[in-house]
Amino acid sequence: MARNFKAVIAYDGTPYSGWQIQPQRTTVQGKLAGVLHNITGENVLPQGSGRTDSGVHALGQVASFALESPIPTANLHRAMNDKLPTSIRILSLEEAAPDFHARYAAKAKTYEYRIKLGEICSPFQANYVLHMPWPLDTNNMQQAAQLIVGEYDFTSFAANDPDKTQRESEPGNDDDREGNVRTVFSSGFTQNDDDLVYTVRGNGFLHHMVRNLMGTFLLIGKGSLARNDFVNILAAKDRTKAGPTAAPQGLYLVSVEY
Amino acid sequence: MARNFKAVIAYDGTPYSGWQIQPQRTTVQGKLAGVLHNITGENVLPQGSGRTDSGVHALGQVASFALESPIPTANLHRAMNDKLPTSIRILSLEEAAPDFHARYAAKAKTYEYRIKLGEICSPFQANYVLHMPWPLDTNNMQQAAQLIVGEYDFTSFAANDPDKTQRESEPGNDDDREGNVRTVFSSGFTQNDDDLVYTVRGNGFLHHMVRNLMGTFLLIGKGSLARNDFVNILAAKDRTKAGPTAAPQGLYLVSVEY
Repeated sequence: MARNFKAVIAYDGTPYSGWQIQPQRTTVQGKLAGVLHNITGENVLPQGSGRTDSGVHALGQVASFALESPIPTANLHRAMNDKLPTSIRILSLEEAAPDFHARYAAKAKTYEYRIKLGEICSPFQANYVLHMPWPLDTNNMQQAAQLIVGEYDFTSFAANDPDKTQRESEPGNDDDREGNVRTVFSSGFTQNDDDLVYTVRGNGFLHHMVRNLMGTFLLIGKGSLARNDFVNILAAKDRTKAGPTAAPQGLYLVSVEY
Repeated sequence: MARNFKAVIAYDGTPYSGWQIQPQRTTVQGKLAGVLHNITGENVLPQGSGRTDSGVHALGQVASFALESPIPTANLHRAMNDKLPTSIRILSLEEAAPDFHARYAAKAKTYEYRIKLGEICSPFQANYVLHMPWPLDTNNMQQAAQLIVGEYDFTSFAANDPDKTQRESEPGNDDDREGNVRTVFSSGFTQNDDDLVYTVRGNGFLHHMVRNLMGTFLLIGKGSLARNDFVNILAAKDRTKAGPTAAPQGLYLVSVEY
C-alpha cells in the first residue's frame, strides 16, 4: 500500500520559473518529481500548499506525495537532498495520514516581504530583497497594513488572471473559498535598521495578492497615496485602483499551518 | 589632467569567472571597465588589489583607475552603481593620490573562509559557504591555523601554476615579495553555532593559498592529518604534501589596507 508523505521544503527561487511544473522550464515541482522518479522509479507529482511565482522564495513550503516504494523515510529524505540542487532543500520529511493533501488541508499560511532601505544594497542580498533607496513613511505603511486584518474581498489585489487556476495559493478548503474573499489574521511591518520586513498570515492568498498589497503599501510609503485611500481601494474590488505588483525576489512563503 | 580614483567594491562571485578580464568570459574587472567606458567614453582597466578566482566573493576589494573625464566623483559613483549589475556594488569611491595603485600600495589583506556545519545547508547559503555536514575537530584546526602566524615560505600552499602571474594576490611591494615568502599577521577560527569562519590577515597571499590552507585544515578537522603533521607540511615547501584546494564559494576578500 502506498505511503503518503509530508515534506517541508526551502528553496531559493532565483533560478526557477516558480513552483509549478511547466514544459521546457526549470521549476521546483519539476525538480522534486524528477528526483522522486530517479530514486523510486515512480511517477508522482508532489502537491504544494500553493504555487509560488518565478523568483519567489520559500522558507517552509509544504508538499505531499504518495509512493509505493518501501524505502525508509530517513533514507528517502537523505537521497532527495543528495540528488536535488543545493538551491532546494527538504528540511523535514515524514509519513502523513493517507488523506493528507498539502493544499486542501492548509489552514493558514504566512508570507514575508523583505525590503532593504539605504542607498546601496549588498550584492549578496540583491536577489533576496526589494531594494528601496528612497525614504519611506513606514508609519503610514504600517497603518495601512493593519487595515486588511479581518475577512475582506481582496479583488483589488488579485492578479488580472482570466484563468482562476492561476492563483498563487489555492483555497485551503476548496468550495468554501471560491471567489476572492480571504481572512487575514495578522499583517504588519517590523524594521531593524535598513531591513524592513512585512509579515502577513491568512487563511489563503490570491495570486499576486501579497505583491499587489506591497506595491500599494509602497505608494503609501512614498507619499503617492494617502493611507485613507487604502480603505477606498480595498472597498472598490477593482484591481485597477491599487498599486503595481511588487518585484518577486522580496517575497518568501514562510510557513503553512495544518 | 587625469584624476586617479580608489574604489572599494563588493561582489557576489557566483556569476563571474573571477576578477581578471578574459576574452569571452564575464569578469568583475571586465564589467567595471565596460561601465567606465559607457559613462566616460574612456578605455581604462581598473587595477585590483589582487585577483580573485571564479566563485570567490569580495566584501571590500579595492581598485584604482585614472580618468580624464571631469565628472564629479559623487556622480561617477552613482552612475557606476546604476549601470553595474546588482551583483557588483561600488561601496565607496574617492579621488586618490596620482601614484596610488591598488596592488602595489597594498600593505595587508584580510580574507575569510566561511563554513556551514550541520546536516542541511540553507538553499540561501549554498553559493556563499562550504557546507561540511560531518563533525570537525575545530580545536585542532584552530591550533594548526595559529602555526602560520609569522613569516614563512608558503610553497606547500601555493597553486601549482607554471605561470607566476597567476597568483591570487600579487605582492604588495613588487620586488620585495618575489618568491613564496609571506608574512601572516593573524590566523584563526571563530564559531557561532553552525557557522565556522576562518579569518586570515597577511601582507600578501599566493594564488590559492587560503583555499589550500583550508583544504589542509579540513583534513586536520576530519582527523585525516594530525596537527603536528601541519608543521612538517609547511616546512616541506612541497605542494604535494598539503591538502586539496577548498571550494571557492566559501572564500571572501574582506578588506585591503594601505
